[in-house]
Amino acid sequence: MAEPAGETAAPAGERRGRRASGGAAARRASRTGGGAGPQLTYITRKIPVYEVLGEEGLALIEANADRVLEETGIEFREDEEALALWKQAGADVKGERVHFPKGLCRELLKTAPPVFTQHARNPARSVQIGGDATVFAPVYGPPFVRDLEGERRYATIEDFRNFVKLAYLAPSIHHSGGTVCEPVDIAVNKRHLDMVYSHIRYSDKPFMGSVTAPERAEDSVAMAKLVFGDDFVDDNCVLINLINANSPLVFDGTMLGAAKVYARANQACIVSPFILAGAMSPVTVAGTLTQVLAEVLAGAAFTQLCRPGAPVLFGTFAASISMQSGAPTFGTPEPSLVSYGAAQLARRAGLPFRTGGSLCGAKLPDAQAAHESANTINMTLLAGTNFALHSAGWLEGGLVSSYEKFMIDVDQLGVMQAMSQGIDLSDNGQAMDAIAEVGPGSHYLGCAHTQANFQTAFYRSTVADNNSFEQWLAEGGKRVEERANALCRDWLASYQPPDLDPAIDEALLAFIAQKKESMPDAFG
Amino acid sequence: MAEPAGETAAPAGERRGRRASGGAAARRASRTGGGAGPQLTYITRKIPVYEVLGEEGLALIEANADRVLEETGIEFREDEEALALWKQAGADVKGERVHFPKGLCRELLKTAPPVFTQHARNPARSVQIGGDATVFAPVYGPPFVRDLEGERRYATIEDFRNFVKLAYLAPSIHHSGGTVCEPVDIAVNKRHLDMVYSHIRYSDKPFMGSVTAPERAEDSVAMAKLVFGDDFVDDNCVLINLINANSPLVFDGTMLGAAKVYARANQACIVSPFILAGAMSPVTVAGTLTQVLAEVLAGAAFTQLCRPGAPVLFGTFAASISMQSGAPTFGTPEPSLVSYGAAQLARRAGLPFRTGGSLCGAKLPDAQAAHESANTINMTLLAGTNFALHSAGWLEGGLVSSYEKFMIDVDQLGVMQAMSQGIDLSDNGQAMDAIAEVGPGSHYLGCAHTQANFQTAFYRSTVADNNSFEQWLAEGGKRVEERANALCRDWLASYQPPDLDPAIDEALLAFIAQKKESMPDAFG
Repeated sequence: MAEPAGETAAPAGERRGRRASGGAAARRASRTGGGAGPQLTYITRKIPVYEVLGEEGLALIEANADRVLEETGIEFREDEEALALWKQAGADVKGERVHFPKGLCRELLKTAPPVFTQHARNPARSVQIGGDATVFAPVYGPPFVRDLEGERRYATIEDFRNFVKLAYLAPSIHHSGGTVCEPVDIAVNKRHLDMVYSHIRYSDKPFMGSVTAPERAEDSVAMAKLVFGDDFVDDNCVLINLINANSPLVFDGTMLGAAKVYARANQACIVSPFILAGAMSPVTVAGTLTQVLAEVLAGAAFTQLCRPGAPVLFGTFAASISMQSGAPTFGTPEPSLVSYGAAQLARRAGLPFRTGGSLCGAKLPDAQAAHESANTINMTLLAGTNFALHSAGWLEGGLVSSYEKFMIDVDQLGVMQAMSQGIDLSDNGQAMDAIAEVGPGSHYLGCAHTQANFQTAFYRSTVADNNSFEQWLAEGGKRVEERANALCRDWLASYQPPDLDPAIDEALLAFIAQKKESMPDAFG
Repeated sequence: MAEPAGETAAPAGERRGRRASGGAAARRASRTGGGAGPQLTYITRKIPVYEVLGEEGLALIEANADRVLEETGIEFREDEEALALWKQAGADVKGERVHFPKGLCRELLKTAPPVFTQHARNPARSVQIGGDATVFAPVYGPPFVRDLEGERRYATIEDFRNFVKLAYLAPSIHHSGGTVCEPVDIAVNKRHLDMVYSHIRYSDKPFMGSVTAPERAEDSVAMAKLVFGDDFVDDNCVLINLINANSPLVFDGTMLGAAKVYARANQACIVSPFILAGAMSPVTVAGTLTQVLAEVLAGAAFTQLCRPGAPVLFGTFAASISMQSGAPTFGTPEPSLVSYGAAQLARRAGLPFRTGGSLCGAKLPDAQAAHESANTINMTLLAGTNFALHSAGWLEGGLVSSYEKFMIDVDQLGVMQAMSQGIDLSDNGQAMDAIAEVGPGSHYLGCAHTQANFQTAFYRSTVADNNSFEQWLAEGGKRVEERANALCRDWLASYQPPDLDPAIDEALLAFIAQKKESMPDAFG
């Protein structure tokens, strides 16, 4: 698929940039890993979106969100500058509470691009964010892994690199993601450097920056500039970054600090309320949607105060909570309805949309994990999600990155890729000659049409077993996660890193060394 | 939910009947089993259908199917009467091959009801077939079971009764189904009697008749008449029956014989091409849809030749085949696209639609089984399927009825039930008071709105574990199928049969004894 630079909806001023020198290193042939289905740079959906809300419901929720923004307001905490910006923009600021006159946020959001390109260091891997594009990115955030020996333990930088490598090889993963697991063997104040470096070194797919402190966001931008060049980064999105609201109705200083860094550097923010409905939002779907919309409108508009035209996404992370334990639950109907509704609200707001993934609360990659993940990822595709974090590897409510589940998930992402292409209505697709040739009571196995199309007609799973029971038993009677385990070992053994300009590599390593030297050294 | 008799679209002449004496036994309080979510009589969908084809694609496939019907034709085998009926109706009959003038099938189908009621012996369990209704029925056909001890073995009548009991208890199963497994400990020529009796005796949900021979269909109707009364059965649908096409483009004598019995008895036929695409239909989705449409139009129109106004469904069973082994594969993108498209074609043909279920090729209820089943059942709901066979218990490509998978599936059917109700936009759903009350930075756990809605707000799974890892580990670190196994034992232990009028029971047993006596006795 061609790089859709022409579809970039950034203001003309943002498009002027010639490709900077860093891009040169990226013009290498793209390599594809083993796995099911074709490697897509990203999905261009040819199927319609599924919409659960009608015009009346959407208008109602929008009016309710406007009321919340005006009457209850949103708190922008620990950030005097943010409050000053809001005051200047015409909001009613009382302490840290900002009340928004009706229409203010939407007015500010007119400068935000509905579609843009996130550039990869390999231009063939650059992804469209928005419109009919869907981008699958891996799991984000777990401090633990479930490893290939079946042990649940703290994640390390070695695990981090492994998940980057697996995402690089997976033909249904379009993005290297961000914190694919927390490398807890490296000090908190330093690990972002190793994480960003790993994404650049071990993959050539686009990636995410650090958001855990403003200076770590600055470091992420600085490293991106070493790869892409200063001008290119100022003119183009090369980092996409997760800015969570502190629901209900709060943005805290850390997230505001990171958002300011990225927006001012013209990099993308995903403004994402992280919602456990019933705890951080109302217990009902419509109430949750109202709060989500209010939070996103305020947070996304804030990025436009920082830099008009900076790319920003409407994000939604929705879970419900268990009545038994208070624990988050995933793949249940209510979060799916929240995400379907939020996708519609995002389209009406003119913003690219992030939600979903392969979420689950299960402790093992069993049928619970699969049902919850499948419900979520089917919704993710049909809702018309543009950026899907957590698409592979997520286990145990996001506490664990699982190697086996990663392999099972990327197989299912291949299913989603094939679904997204809809029904081929060409003459070949119609197969009228084949029907006439075969006729009643015969079979299609040997006919010319079948022979011509067999290799590409059906999605071919990498981990499912469809042999006879006897054959399956003779091969050890294995569960799917055992096959996933073996395939994962194969992928890691076969991994070859993409080319990286040695000068860039050196510059990155020097930057990291200098940064680490300047920091207090606990460990790592 | 009220019995929707008023929505029955059967011709006026079909509606005259007073309720026959057999119905009296059914007017008992409905019992609900343990399990997740409310017991629904059937689903009334409040969410839109998802449609993958536009007008152009639909018109193209319809025109292609018309060409197939006219030029290639369909064979009606081993049934002189069927050929005579077609000749009389204006078709061009050459040997067993019937060619249909353009429009003939659709003209005949004008007498088929788009919506009808299948009556249960307990009127509170009667289901709507068609329109915005979705009915979940259990697995149909497996000769094997995977039992609660983990053994894979031939199914028995005891297993059959158990699955009827489980379906009776499941709050997300609306129908007792048909051959929930093959009771191979009873002779082939007799087992239909025990199967139909088990549905009547151990459940009060609606059920299916036998189709494996015309005389077994006659027996099914005769037994239904003992329960519902002769006139009531002649006036109303009390049996729904699976009539498979022998794809490509053939109906055989057995199926035609059963179809004639049921249609003439005013009972419902599901005309269902059983398609393994690439073998029994073209290897492409559009080609398969064309063949499916041609087969259904011919088979469904045939029921109207037998008795105008007899209820008939547009059925589609679609799988693809593995390129490695030739085995059928499930939950893959192509069959989902076939079913989505077929649902649209069925609506345009004015017929209720059957497809989907919880299909999989896996040998165990693992993540493969779950992903394949989840992809299928999500599609089943969103396509607007009216009758979903195989909704629970299906394993190993339909060779095995699994107790554990049955429990996992009915939990997911509860998820589908909740999804189907969409987003509540009432004042309570909007939760504006709660948002104003809680405000920024607090939480909703204790607020009045949460307390008032908590018990019903979120779907509550019966088999998922959402506890902390530590708690889960302390409770044995169980996989979901272990929890499903325990729950299944609980359900079977707690089962109490619904009331059945002793006079009806005696009549049924006498009928069965007399029938069995008249048959050659091998075993059983």
